[in-house]
Amino acid sequence: MTQCAPPVWPVGFLAGSVCAGIKKQGVPDLALILGESPLTAAAVFTKNLVCAAPIQLSKSHLAYSHTKISALLINSGCANAATGAEGLTRARRATTALAALLHVDATTVLTNSTGVIGVQLPVDRIEAALPSLVASVQAGSCESFARAIMTTDTRPKWSTRTIHWTVGATAHTCRVTGVAKGAGMIHPNMATMIAVLATDATCTPHDLDALLRHAVDRSFHRISVDGDTSTNDSVFALASCTSGTPPAAELAEAFDAVAQDLALLVVRDGEGFERGIEVRVIGAKTSDDALQVARTIAMSLLVRTAVTGGDPNWGRILAAAGRAGVAFNPETVRLSTGGIELFAHGAPTASDLAAVRLAFTAELVRIELDLSMGSASDHFWSCGLTKRYVEINADYTT
Amino acid sequence: MTQCAPPVWPVGFLAGSVCAGIKKQGVPDLALILGESPLTAAAVFTKNLVCAAPIQLSKSHLAYSHTKISALLINSGCANAATGAEGLTRARRATTALAALLHVDATTVLTNSTGVIGVQLPVDRIEAALPSLVASVQAGSCESFARAIMTTDTRPKWSTRTIHWTVGATAHTCRVTGVAKGAGMIHPNMATMIAVLATDATCTPHDLDALLRHAVDRSFHRISVDGDTSTNDSVFALASCTSGTPPAAELAEAFDAVAQDLALLVVRDGEGFERGIEVRVIGAKTSDDALQVARTIAMSLLVRTAVTGGDPNWGRILAAAGRAGVAFNPETVRLSTGGIELFAHGAPTASDLAAVRLAFTAELVRIELDLSMGSASDHFWSCGLTKRYVEINADYTT
Repeated sequence: MTQCAPPVWPVGFLAGSVCAGIKKQGVPDLALILGESPLTAAAVFTKNLVCAAPIQLSKSHLAYSHTKISALLINSGCANAATGAEGLTRARRATTALAALLHVDATTVLTNSTGVIGVQLPVDRIEAALPSLVASVQAGSCESFARAIMTTDTRPKWSTRTIHWTVGATAHTCRVTGVAKGAGMIHPNMATMIAVLATDATCTPHDLDALLRHAVDRSFHRISVDGDTSTNDSVFALASCTSGTPPAAELAEAFDAVAQDLALLVVRDGEGFERGIEVRVIGAKTSDDALQVARTIAMSLLVRTAVTGGDPNWGRILAAAGRAGVAFNPETVRLSTGGIELFAHGAPTASDLAAVRLAFTAELVRIELDLSMGSASDHFWSCGLTKRYVEINADYTT
Repeated sequence: MTQCAPPVWPVGFLAGSVCAGIKKQGVPDLALILGESPLTAAAVFTKNLVCAAPIQLSKSHLAYSHTKISALLINSGCANAATGAEGLTRARRATTALAALLHVDATTVLTNSTGVIGVQLPVDRIEAALPSLVASVQAGSCESFARAIMTTDTRPKWSTRTIHWTVGATAHTCRVTGVAKGAGMIHPNMATMIAVLATDATCTPHDLDALLRHAVDRSFHRISVDGDTSTNDSVFALASCTSGTPPAAELAEAFDAVAQDLALLVVRDGEGFERGIEVRVIGAKTSDDALQVARTIAMSLLVRTAVTGGDPNWGRILAAAGRAGVAFNPETVRLSTGGIELFAHGAPTASDLAAVRLAFTAELVRIELDLSMGSASDHFWSCGLTKRYVEINADYTT
């Protein structure tokens, strides 16, 4: 998957970023999206009990103002997580200061932070930077915003889809543009995944929430880099409602496609990434069963190290499936990789070892397991576990 | 933990080993324990659905003959897992051939295999080696048996406890001796953990089973090297019932102690091992809750890489606890490492950073989390995730 040039935000959105000095390197670390008029909003937040202060704040603002959101403020360089009452006070100071500049109610500002856990937010620097941040916003390219929310990402992540439809003789168009930062809760103390999906389609808060949950469930909830749920994970959906109502199915498809693009970009940028893994489980009794088996295989350290080594150790795939907690009969499962059958009827299948080896060294190693228990299926993406991953996460010194 | 010189088997046991040529290196790879008279036996087997042929066979033999076991035959170099009906036939051939040599019923022979998954057992070599294997057995040191069941282990693993008690004026003594091979399902295709606990105490099959399950639950079920349950994991308990009945509590203590020694030896010999992790969760509502949180922290890749780096990234410990699926209030938990408080009352605790750093570079990093929800507690052991682990598991070529 190659990433295209930075797409533009949909109609009705302005965005920008500045260097607020939160990160030491003097790079952009404070990003802002504004609605030209009030935005409809929805969000999916981390389920981690240790939930960052800005997420606690955004949850309460969203409950109150989900049809009249003015702004989304995101900083990198500090997660403002595990920071207690002081952390919440600082998050509130930042959103209140922005609201004052924008002459809006503070509850219409959403926020999140990403960076080191357990360090208080340098809110003085954020307050000082807000006037130039507000001055920086413009319509058009999402690049500056996408860059400012990066932490250990090696590249900014974006994706877009345009929907065309007609009402009578009139042609209409709208857009879904997404940006994300990732990948997994990877870097030392980094609290990680944030994505924003913006559209100019007209939707109710209820529909936007449903579109977002459907899209997230099939994308961000199907990837793992290290199995750790961060304290700051969030996906925001914002709608300017300026361009009319496209056919529901096409809008859903666009949300799903953009979210899936971003999720795969997050995996591909996982620290130490060398090779991706796609696990597809078919023939399951229920889709929950399929997901459970797919996730267990994709997250197995032994499967992930085998993929890193390009080593066709398919016994590890079966062993991971067998401990997933889902009933199946090992005598009737069928395992293949890259379309080559490896195991069937309870025994290894004679195979062309060179072809098998090739399948295990693909850029994306495709594993398919047929449980022969029914007709449900699901999938999960991860990546090989590499020495570089361990290095990045171990050799850091605070 | 330093390991002592190889202990002796209890009274009533003979053991030995030979090179059967299953492993290419010409090292001992076939091991045997015989009872001088029929042994009482119990076992705990892997819960993996993809269960190896020798385990399937041993389960049925054990159900039939748990008061009259003659022998336990273990080979390394081949797991005989994912080998279908042919695998079961070969396992049966090996046990039947041994039974014929010993003039016993084949159902009184238990067996297991450890090594590569998905390769058929070279049963011809095993049959050819059986006469010299039977000739090799003797009472005394457990060393040759412990060495022959090794796969990627860097050292043999054993532990023993002696129990002294008196009945009237008569002094009695008995012993519990254990050997194990490990560590986790670590090496490419290796299907791994096997342990044998032998005692000359007199016990009923029911009591032996209870002793074994209690001991395993507090030892082997509390360790993880990579989260993968192997297809061949098994712990056997064998009692010769020759030395009388020690006080029940002391026998249980001896089983628990030997099993815990072996479990920790397995972790310490985990591939790429550099530093151990002990997680103790206290103040939980239930012990299930405590175990769930302790296990999640101990198995978190981010916690494990932080420990490898000796990096006091305690935010990762809280983040792992927060996703464990157990309700607690982050504002009231208390986290410490090596006795140094790091987080309390919802915020970082001011700490001596040098002391914290020292706690994170101990040979065994001791993490304690008080959930402040009740009075239940539990623990879990793992080890830092190292580059060497990835190297061993990725850079192997079949």
